[in-house]
Amino acid sequence: MENSYGSSRKSKDVSLQELRDRLAEFAEVRGWDQYHSPRNLLLALVGEVGELSEIFQWKGEVARGLPNWSSDDKEHLEEELSDVLLYLVRLADVCGLDLGQAALTKIVKNARKYPILNQTQTSTFN
Amino acid sequence: MENSYGSSRKSKDVSLQELRDRLAEFAEVRGWDQYHSPRNLLLALVGEVGELSEIFQWKGEVARGLPNWSSDDKEHLEEELSDVLLYLVRLADVCGLDLGQAALTKIVKNARKYPILNQTQTSTFN
Amino acid sequence: MENSYGSSRKSKDVSLQELRDRLAEFAEVRGWDQYHSPRNLLLALVGEVGELSEIFQWKGEVARGLPNWSSDDKEHLEEELSDVLLYLVRLADVCGLDLGQAALTKIVKNARKYPILNQTQTSTFN
Amino acid sequence: MENSYGSSRKSKDVSLQELRDRLAEFAEVRGWDQYHSPRNLLLALVGEVGELSEIFQWKGEVARGLPNWSSDDKEHLEEELSDVLLYLVRLADVCGLDLGQAALTKIVKNARKYPILNQTQTSTFN
Repeated sequence: MENSYGSSRKSKDVSLQELRDRLAEFAEVRGWDQYHSPRNLLLALVGEVGELSEIFQWKGEVARGLPNWSSDDKEHLEEELSDVLLYLVRLADVCGLDLGQAALTKIVKNARKYPILNQTQTSTFN
Repeated sequence: MENSYGSSRKSKDVSLQELRDRLAEFAEVRGWDQYHSPRNLLLALVGEVGELSEIFQWKGEVARGLPNWSSDDKEHLEEELSDVLLYLVRLADVCGLDLGQAALTKIVKNARKYPILNQTQTSTFN
Repeated sequence: MENSYGSSRKSKDVSLQELRDRLAEFAEVRGWDQYHSPRNLLLALVGEVGELSEIFQWKGEVARGLPNWSSDDKEHLEEELSDVLLYLVRLADVCGLDLGQAALTKIVKNARKYPILNQTQTSTFN
Repeated sequence: MENSYGSSRKSKDVSLQELRDRLAEFAEVRGWDQYHSPRNLLLALVGEVGELSEIFQWKGEVARGLPNWSSDDKEHLEEELSDVLLYLVRLADVCGLDLGQAALTKIVKNARKYPILNQTQTSTFN
C-alpha cells in the first residue's frame, strides 16, 4: 500500500479504536478524566489546530509531499497533526460517539452528494 | 470493548490507513487532487473545526456522554467530528506523512513527558 | 463610559484606522510586507485564536469579569486577544477592505435580522 | 488617509469602544447577556474564524487587494471579518478588558521585540 506520495508503507495499521483506548487509559491513570469535559477538549483541539496553522503561516503555498522541508520540520508537523487527532479522538470518546464508524458513514454520504462526473468539480467534503 | 461511556462496541474497527486510501481514491476519481494542496486542506480543516465549535457555542458546559442531546444533534456532531478527521487524514496524506504511526509515537512521547504520579496533574497532551 | 463590567474608562478611544495605519507602518519599516499575503495572515490569525483558546481550555466554565484570575493571567489574555485583533486588522487591510465600516454595517444587518422582541431569543450574530 | 491598497478613505473612523458599546446594548435589549459567557463567545469566535477560512480554502494563494474577486465575494469577506471582530470585541468586554488599549500596548511591545534592522526579518507579531 502506498500513500499519495508514493512512499511504501511497511508500518502497522493504526485503528481509531486503538487510539481511543490508549487515550482513555492514559487519562484515567493520570487522574485527568476530571478535566476531559467536551468543551475543554474542544478548546484544546482548537489550540492544537492553531499550532498546526503556525507551521504553515509564513510559507506561502506549500507543495504536496513537502519537497524542501527538513526532517525536523516534518517531525514537528507530524506532532501537531497527531495532537489534533488525539484530542479529536478523545472528544468523540467522551461524547460517547464512534468516530471511526461516523467517518465511514460520512464518506458514503459524501459519495452520494458528489457523484462521479466526467468534468471537474469543486472540491468539498461538507 | 467499551468506549468511555460504556456503550458496547460491535462496530468494525476503522483504521487510519483505510480512511486515507478511501479519501485518496475519492479525490482522484472526482478530479479533486488539483485542489488538495496542503494549505487548501488546512483551511478546509479550520472551516470544519469552526462548524464543530458552532455546535457547542451556546450550550454552556456540556456533560460527558451528552445526556440530554437528541439523536439528531448527536448525528450532527458525528458528522462535524468526521469532517475534521477526514481533512486531517487527507492533509497528512498529501504531506506524505503516516498519521497513525505519528499518533502512536506522540502517545509514547506524552507518556514520558507526563509520568504517572500519585497526585493529580494538569491535563495536557502538548 | 463603562464596560460591561463596570470598570470606569479613562483610557483613550482607539480606532480601527489607527491600528491599521500603525500595523501597515510596522510591517513596511521591517520589510515584512512581502510576507503579509492574505492566506499567510489568515493562518497567523488562526494560530493566535489557538493561543487564545489555550488560555481557556482547562478551566471549565469561566464567569464574566474573570473574578478569580490573577493580573498576570488577565494580561496574558489581553495579549492574545490583541494578537487576534492585530492580524484581523492587517488581513482586512491587505485585502483592501474597511473593517470598521464593515463592522458597523454588519451590526445594522444583525439588528434587522434579530428584531427586538419581548421574549428571550437565541443569541447569534451570524 | 489610504489603506495599504491605495483606496482613499472617506469613511468615518470607527473605534473599538463604539463597537463595544453598541454590542453591549445589542445583547442587553435582546436578553442575550445570559448567553454571553466568555467560553460561549470564544467558541462563537472560533465558528466565525471557520467561516472566514472557508472563503479562502479552495483558492490557492490569494493576491493582496483581491484583484479578481467579485463585489459579492468581497462583501461576503467583509461580513465574515466583521463577525470575527464583533465576537472578539464582545469577548474582551465580558472579560472586563480594554481591547483597544491592550492592542496599542501589544504594538509597542512588538516594536521592542522586533527592532527595525536593515535586513529583512521573519514576520511575526507573537
